[in-house]
Amino acid sequence: MAGNSIGTLFKLSTFGESHGEAIGGVIDGCPSGIEISIEQIQNELDRRRPGQSNLTTQRKEGDLVKILSGVFEGKTTGTPIGFIIQNQDAKSKDYSQIKDVYRPSHADKVYNNKYGFRDYRGGGRSSARETATRVVGGAIARQALSHLNVDVWAYVSAVGEIEVNNHYTNLDSQKIESSLVRCPDAVTAQKMIERIEQVKKAGDSIGGIITCVIQNAPVGLGEPVFDKLHADLGKAMLSINAVKGFEIGSGFSSSRMLGSEHNDLFNKDGSTKTNNSGGIQGGISNGEDIVMRIAFKPVATIMKDQPSINAYGEEKVLLAKGRHDPCVVPRAVPIVEAMALLTILDHYLRNKTSRIV
Amino acid sequence: MAGNSIGTLFKLSTFGESHGEAIGGVIDGCPSGIEISIEQIQNELDRRRPGQSNLTTQRKEGDLVKILSGVFEGKTTGTPIGFIIQNQDAKSKDYSQIKDVYRPSHADKVYNNKYGFRDYRGGGRSSARETATRVVGGAIARQALSHLNVDVWAYVSAVGEIEVNNHYTNLDSQKIESSLVRCPDAVTAQKMIERIEQVKKAGDSIGGIITCVIQNAPVGLGEPVFDKLHADLGKAMLSINAVKGFEIGSGFSSSRMLGSEHNDLFNKDGSTKTNNSGGIQGGISNGEDIVMRIAFKPVATIMKDQPSINAYGEEKVLLAKGRHDPCVVPRAVPIVEAMALLTILDHYLRNKTSRIV
Amino acid sequence: MAGNSIGTLFKLSTFGESHGEAIGGVIDGCPSGIEISIEQIQNELDRRRPGQSNLTTQRKEGDLVKILSGVFEGKTTGTPIGFIIQNQDAKSKDYSQIKDVYRPSHADKVYNNKYGFRDYRGGGRSSARETATRVVGGAIARQALSHLNVDVWAYVSAVGEIEVNNHYTNLDSQKIESSLVRCPDAVTAQKMIERIEQVKKAGDSIGGIITCVIQNAPVGLGEPVFDKLHADLGKAMLSINAVKGFEIGSGFSSSRMLGSEHNDLFNKDGSTKTNNSGGIQGGISNGEDIVMRIAFKPVATIMKDQPSINAYGEEKVLLAKGRHDPCVVPRAVPIVEAMALLTILDHYLRNKTSRIV
Amino acid sequence: MAGNSIGTLFKLSTFGESHGEAIGGVIDGCPSGIEISIEQIQNELDRRRPGQSNLTTQRKEGDLVKILSGVFEGKTTGTPIGFIIQNQDAKSKDYSQIKDVYRPSHADKVYNNKYGFRDYRGGGRSSARETATRVVGGAIARQALSHLNVDVWAYVSAVGEIEVNNHYTNLDSQKIESSLVRCPDAVTAQKMIERIEQVKKAGDSIGGIITCVIQNAPVGLGEPVFDKLHADLGKAMLSINAVKGFEIGSGFSSSRMLGSEHNDLFNKDGSTKTNNSGGIQGGISNGEDIVMRIAFKPVATIMKDQPSINAYGEEKVLLAKGRHDPCVVPRAVPIVEAMALLTILDHYLRNKTSRIV
Repeated sequence: MAGNSIGTLFKLSTFGESHGEAIGGVIDGCPSGIEISIEQIQNELDRRRPGQSNLTTQRKEGDLVKILSGVFEGKTTGTPIGFIIQNQDAKSKDYSQIKDVYRPSHADKVYNNKYGFRDYRGGGRSSARETATRVVGGAIARQALSHLNVDVWAYVSAVGEIEVNNHYTNLDSQKIESSLVRCPDAVTAQKMIERIEQVKKAGDSIGGIITCVIQNAPVGLGEPVFDKLHADLGKAMLSINAVKGFEIGSGFSSSRMLGSEHNDLFNKDGSTKTNNSGGIQGGISNGEDIVMRIAFKPVATIMKDQPSINAYGEEKVLLAKGRHDPCVVPRAVPIVEAMALLTILDHYLRNKTSRIV
Repeated sequence: MAGNSIGTLFKLSTFGESHGEAIGGVIDGCPSGIEISIEQIQNELDRRRPGQSNLTTQRKEGDLVKILSGVFEGKTTGTPIGFIIQNQDAKSKDYSQIKDVYRPSHADKVYNNKYGFRDYRGGGRSSARETATRVVGGAIARQALSHLNVDVWAYVSAVGEIEVNNHYTNLDSQKIESSLVRCPDAVTAQKMIERIEQVKKAGDSIGGIITCVIQNAPVGLGEPVFDKLHADLGKAMLSINAVKGFEIGSGFSSSRMLGSEHNDLFNKDGSTKTNNSGGIQGGISNGEDIVMRIAFKPVATIMKDQPSINAYGEEKVLLAKGRHDPCVVPRAVPIVEAMALLTILDHYLRNKTSRIV
Repeated sequence: MAGNSIGTLFKLSTFGESHGEAIGGVIDGCPSGIEISIEQIQNELDRRRPGQSNLTTQRKEGDLVKILSGVFEGKTTGTPIGFIIQNQDAKSKDYSQIKDVYRPSHADKVYNNKYGFRDYRGGGRSSARETATRVVGGAIARQALSHLNVDVWAYVSAVGEIEVNNHYTNLDSQKIESSLVRCPDAVTAQKMIERIEQVKKAGDSIGGIITCVIQNAPVGLGEPVFDKLHADLGKAMLSINAVKGFEIGSGFSSSRMLGSEHNDLFNKDGSTKTNNSGGIQGGISNGEDIVMRIAFKPVATIMKDQPSINAYGEEKVLLAKGRHDPCVVPRAVPIVEAMALLTILDHYLRNKTSRIV
Repeated sequence: MAGNSIGTLFKLSTFGESHGEAIGGVIDGCPSGIEISIEQIQNELDRRRPGQSNLTTQRKEGDLVKILSGVFEGKTTGTPIGFIIQNQDAKSKDYSQIKDVYRPSHADKVYNNKYGFRDYRGGGRSSARETATRVVGGAIARQALSHLNVDVWAYVSAVGEIEVNNHYTNLDSQKIESSLVRCPDAVTAQKMIERIEQVKKAGDSIGGIITCVIQNAPVGLGEPVFDKLHADLGKAMLSINAVKGFEIGSGFSSSRMLGSEHNDLFNKDGSTKTNNSGGIQGGISNGEDIVMRIAFKPVATIMKDQPSINAYGEEKVLLAKGRHDPCVVPRAVPIVEAMALLTILDHYLRNKTSRIV
């Protein structure tokens, strides 16, 4: 039990069901003296919000965050930061179908198996709605890291079979937000948009990949042997709904390489000529860019009737109904960034005690 | 700091450098009443040990585990299990080269950056030698899980570009150990062996992939939203030396699929017709096989001279020297199994408190 | 950092400043299936609330708790329980004095030392107002434990030099709440009331002792060697504002006893003839009543002018002003109970994994 | 489960039964660069060792500590420090009595209740022998803290009814070790010795009190609201075998005081004129001496026959037999110091992240 906290020193604990009263969280261990812009937090939340374009679900949530504690006269005080986001678009729904029939590849059945029953409204705790609280945490972490000049950004590098072929170093991170699919490569972005519209029309959903880059992270972050930096980043990413795979640096392609190809030789200044390591060696950041790829499955909710069963083992048809995102990946970009920010700040604080002086 | 423990309730804390006095660990939270066979623990250790064949490094370590506490009259007592493995083959070495010159894609430089200095002998704490202690922990977890009928096995599914094309359900797990490369598909295994010999002759190293299968895991394991079962499995695997990627179920291939293809439809008994989910939905085990793929890079130590630098920023040549594994993946199979076993047992215990009655 | 959570499996994380927007918390790890009465939670809060009688501060807070998640159709779902209590009586105060002058024996100066600055309004995070969130957590724990028949109650056993001389087994726990000072011994209670009124009139404050009794706790709770049940109870109690001492069973008086007097001899049924151990032996509950005594210092806020200094090292007079409790002990009774309840439930859950079968 | 670790950042995990192969531990999170004297560690162990005088048990253990990892060329490396102490005086005993008959006020019965069975040899895990591993941890912490000028010392302030009447500031800490009972007040020490000899002759045991003083601790240690410095100190002390009570500063006597007496008024330099707070206000160290009193009950093993029962509920007589300490308090002094040192170092490291800059 008790799996709703992440981080060791900068610890985010979250709560909330999709259609309950509110979602929210507590950040404990936030150092004092960080200037907090509520506007920036809200801005990150708006990036995740449903209804941003007609590519995404039309659920309209204000998703207004309210900070309840831990910030005084614009700065963190060192005491826990409590926050909530009211649920607004959640009233008077008809949940009779979702209550009775298990949605395929959703968490409905396993929640029932584990806990005996569940808050079925809108998917309850298993809904991706909880990721809004991660974005709040990440936005605060971003402000803490900004004085260190650490930069974290992510983009959609694949939708279905459509992939960005450019290396990230050839892309302009400033062009991500202006893209409807958060892909800075305009030509590929257009293809992605068309693919998603096609899938939407078919009442289906499609998967994708997000690439995340962390720049200017301090050298020395990561706590071997178990809390290696990429192990904690991997866990953070794999905890996001719909994620099925994680790679650091050369990732799966490294399995097909030779050591003489893969080894990152040093420049005289200690930097490396290549970065197959993805910015992390032996579990510790080495000052190069930290580069990850995160694979998302197609979301399970589709606008097609599906055969299923109910809690009594009876065969039922789950009717296509309601709203959904045909491709969740563009909206997942700020969530991926948030998980990276939370992890980096936590390890930054952990690393403060690596030497006695 | 303090990153050398894994697990919440079944907690393994390890210590030890490659060429120090001994390596070992403490398992805290092991329930009482588990029958322990030292022979089985030793057997797992022998599977990981160097020098098993001429495909692996010739370092010969007895790797004899000694249990110091927590087991009485053949059963666990509920108190912590302390254990050590003496380092034997570690005396009177000449470390002058490794002391002075940073090995490319090793942890030498980052350890110096982080801690100010390091125990450079044999790689110190960053050596894969520490994984022997994980195997001990996993062997004890295996015995704890055996009464639940949980079965965990892994095999080499790729060496470089040579991949097993058969689905795991068509393979015979009993044939893994008799294979020199721990690949149960005899034809592919032979190709892998030839590839490794070729790489060895060239003084190089090569990467690979391990597939791990967990069968008969109870339904309900996993603690959303952060400690999802596959997130903890992913972290456990990514913490193993040389791992660069992790997939659960459909993994990266899911990013190219449609929801209508990917969704696992239910059978009437609640099982699923397909298993793209890889045995975990919403972060909770659903009773299907849990299937993972873990990517290993080629090990960084190669038998070729490499240009490098030393701690003073001087350019130096790192001479090819010593012993090494041209492909670490066959020996990593018991390590992958150990990490899976540790994670499953920990979550089995955690799940014991999911309901009040 | 990150010291605002308590519990391992049943984990309460709290937030909130005295005069901020709201206080609240998240309970993670609460098992599913517990019937929750909001009324009972509110009732516990009302026991802690200021303004209950003219013996206590006249600050009037509705202290209405709002549960935001984790409870569905009257029962816990196994997901985190988020809750908040709005701060109402906190507007438009004049904090100029407390802002500038350090209050003696308060946390003003050390918060400034530690964090660089502080939310000085009403004492900020260091105010005892945060204990309201503990009471919410304890009230939920009480409902979880009620099906196990565990009973936790506490009473004021001393105010200043006025002590209850009766052993707790001779007292009627049903008479605690009807007493203005939460002392079930009517004669002593009357003396306590008179003493507090006298102290109040003098503008002073006075300390006291609370005795807490846990009945019907299951045998086997406590996790040696560090997380002994009374060690965790002690920490829980010592974390309450103004607590300076903790005793289990015979406590300090045991230091004056002989082993032959102190040893609790067994009855044939395994119970003990005496209970000097206070219900815990070797750190594990033995089925006897768990009995603790908790010492509270007189609260630091008094209605007398006091010499002090400000943040600039200048000597200032802190003027007597505002409202205060002359004796905090009666209102601390539900807080003590809450900490006992949180600890016992956490250890009850932890103990569920002590044996493999 | 998993209660054998203490500390958050400087984390000691221990293992070992009284008469098993060895006891030991792992220290994870020790910063790099601390100079370690094995001799000083051994010296602390020797202070705890049985057989120091004829006032203590005659069990003769070399108690030689062996460091297995984490120290290289005389300094900590930042990697975990593994250590063991072989059990020597544990062979070929006759445990038939202790195996069958529950010793009153020992942990025999509760261990059986909790775990189903136990390693009964010499008390197994519940024996005070495990405290030797705490002393090792404390000795390393002492060396880490020495560069900060932090000084931790303790002494026996009461044996039975015989108490030191001098305030600690009037005592010479240099005279503690030369005293057979670790009491620096020579006259009182002599009375204590006589009392213990008398008790020993009677085959009985007697309790006592240890006072512990921490000097020069940095300002700002402690993490409210739950991990207040004195709450963690209290837990650490209460986890020592035989401890029944804990006080910080004015302790239980504060319950009889008025606020106007108890408040510690400031000097102009920010120090306080009195120290009723015991060096901690609001859970945070304020730079004054941290002063604690810890009450020990008389040890349960006495040289008198005692009526008891066995595991089958049969009445049995437990015969007086073997060796024992009539008063454990003098030997507990280094254990108390160790727990203080572990706690202070852990909080020193935790406090390193209280501010962002």
